[in-house]
Amino acid sequence: MSTRIAFLKGHGTENDFVIVPDPENAIDLPPAAVAVLCDRRAGIGGDGVLHVVRSAAHPEAKDMAGEAEWFMDYRNGDGSVAEMCGNGVRVFARYLQRAGHVTEGDLAVATRGGVKTVHLAKDGDVTVGMGKALLPEGKVTVSVGERSWPARNVNMGNPHAVAFVDDLAHAGDLLSPPPFSPAAAYPDGVNVEFVVDRGPRHVALRVHERGAGETRSCGTGACAVAVAAARRDGADPAVTGAPVTYTVDLPGGTLVITERPDGEIEMTGPAVIVAEGEIDAEWLETLAR
Amino acid sequence: MSTRIAFLKGHGTENDFVIVPDPENAIDLPPAAVAVLCDRRAGIGGDGVLHVVRSAAHPEAKDMAGEAEWFMDYRNGDGSVAEMCGNGVRVFARYLQRAGHVTEGDLAVATRGGVKTVHLAKDGDVTVGMGKALLPEGKVTVSVGERSWPARNVNMGNPHAVAFVDDLAHAGDLLSPPPFSPAAAYPDGVNVEFVVDRGPRHVALRVHERGAGETRSCGTGACAVAVAAARRDGADPAVTGAPVTYTVDLPGGTLVITERPDGEIEMTGPAVIVAEGEIDAEWLETLAR
Repeated sequence: MSTRIAFLKGHGTENDFVIVPDPENAIDLPPAAVAVLCDRRAGIGGDGVLHVVRSAAHPEAKDMAGEAEWFMDYRNGDGSVAEMCGNGVRVFARYLQRAGHVTEGDLAVATRGGVKTVHLAKDGDVTVGMGKALLPEGKVTVSVGERSWPARNVNMGNPHAVAFVDDLAHAGDLLSPPPFSPAAAYPDGVNVEFVVDRGPRHVALRVHERGAGETRSCGTGACAVAVAAARRDGADPAVTGAPVTYTVDLPGGTLVITERPDGEIEMTGPAVIVAEGEIDAEWLETLAR
Repeated sequence: MSTRIAFLKGHGTENDFVIVPDPENAIDLPPAAVAVLCDRRAGIGGDGVLHVVRSAAHPEAKDMAGEAEWFMDYRNGDGSVAEMCGNGVRVFARYLQRAGHVTEGDLAVATRGGVKTVHLAKDGDVTVGMGKALLPEGKVTVSVGERSWPARNVNMGNPHAVAFVDDLAHAGDLLSPPPFSPAAAYPDGVNVEFVVDRGPRHVALRVHERGAGETRSCGTGACAVAVAAARRDGADPAVTGAPVTYTVDLPGGTLVITERPDGEIEMTGPAVIVAEGEIDAEWLETLAR
């Protein structure tokens, strides 16, 4: 009797999303409704919502409709909007493929951060362009308890401090943000990655995300770590003219990061749809009031 | 093409469950599959699974089939089996009603802890009998940081230490189990409730569950708190012959607890189905391997 809203749940290296297909932009998703959907106990649960809308049907994406048929209207778990999410756009592409809207190969996706190119590989992996890394000069130190490490400052649109450590356990329980210095290096806080080597061009990390705590996966963090590891290892695609690839193990899975000679970074990894179903629109409206 | 498994997601005061309807007991649910379903990022997410099976179709419930048509095959989030779950059986009853298997009124549900009587009220609330409380003698003290409080030892089939405090914030972040003494009072650890008064026969609590940390809701904890508050307030149904009712606010919602003159405790509160859908059986099997 009541109206039903279709949803799917999916994840990329355990960065997880509630997907709401809405080609004609007919579903009202105020911040409170997004927060309810993302609530892991009272709702479905996810790090964010991927609202799937045709670019032509969304005022923020109309101008991109000629280039990209679909718009990723990305929302954070608290209901706020975000420009982009690297794992999110990979799961977004997997959904479009599953729904029969696109096939294997290259795909343009409109986002608030512009049109992104995604590649759906035959083996199921999904690749997305993550832009370029900036490497600000200056020494940075991060610490946990009595231990401290020099860290590389990497900016992927958001700030990262990458510390190479002997043992990921040295990062402790990561229940609070690791202190860093100098304070001026990151006036708005920082995402901190702790990294160990696993083999040639193969590293593993743990990450404390600014405002979120330790997470299972961080796409920009994996990119920042790959670039920091490359520079540490004396590899710079801009110098050699050859792309450099690192395998990055995260708690939630493995991402493969390639830096090209022009500085563009590509992130490749799994994107999985776990379930699909329906929610009661009335329930959502009641809770979101 | 692939086999689909139907599921629902629901919660009672934010104690949440993946519901798997399986009347004929045809779905194989090994512990690893349960753990995947309950994984909040790689799966659906929940505190446990409510496997809904006809008693006659399940070897552990056959003997109860004459009394109770449906068996709650309850699984903890790690895949282990459990005898009973007070919030779980309320959500279980709500599902049976939604599926059209039962109507408002009294309902017998088979569990590993025996046949339980559940009442589905017209207003949507669900009541379940939680058994009797034992009140072992002896002084108990619990502490958080520099503060400590006398606590009431209440056993609801599982052990509780109930401490009345001035402010729920005094319990701190509850990231580790609150120390208690004497150690002999709880050889296997204890669930600790911190309680403040909200009004006449109305309290609020925070709970640290043994092995799980701070949780949004604990059914047996709410019952233990209601009994401890009643005794503190000089109310004992066994003495007066009149039932005593307390309203208990938990972080995830409100439960109403009634202790009857024969000592039986009834727990009443909301039970909500949030979503329903399907998962890919092949995906579940692959992950659970």
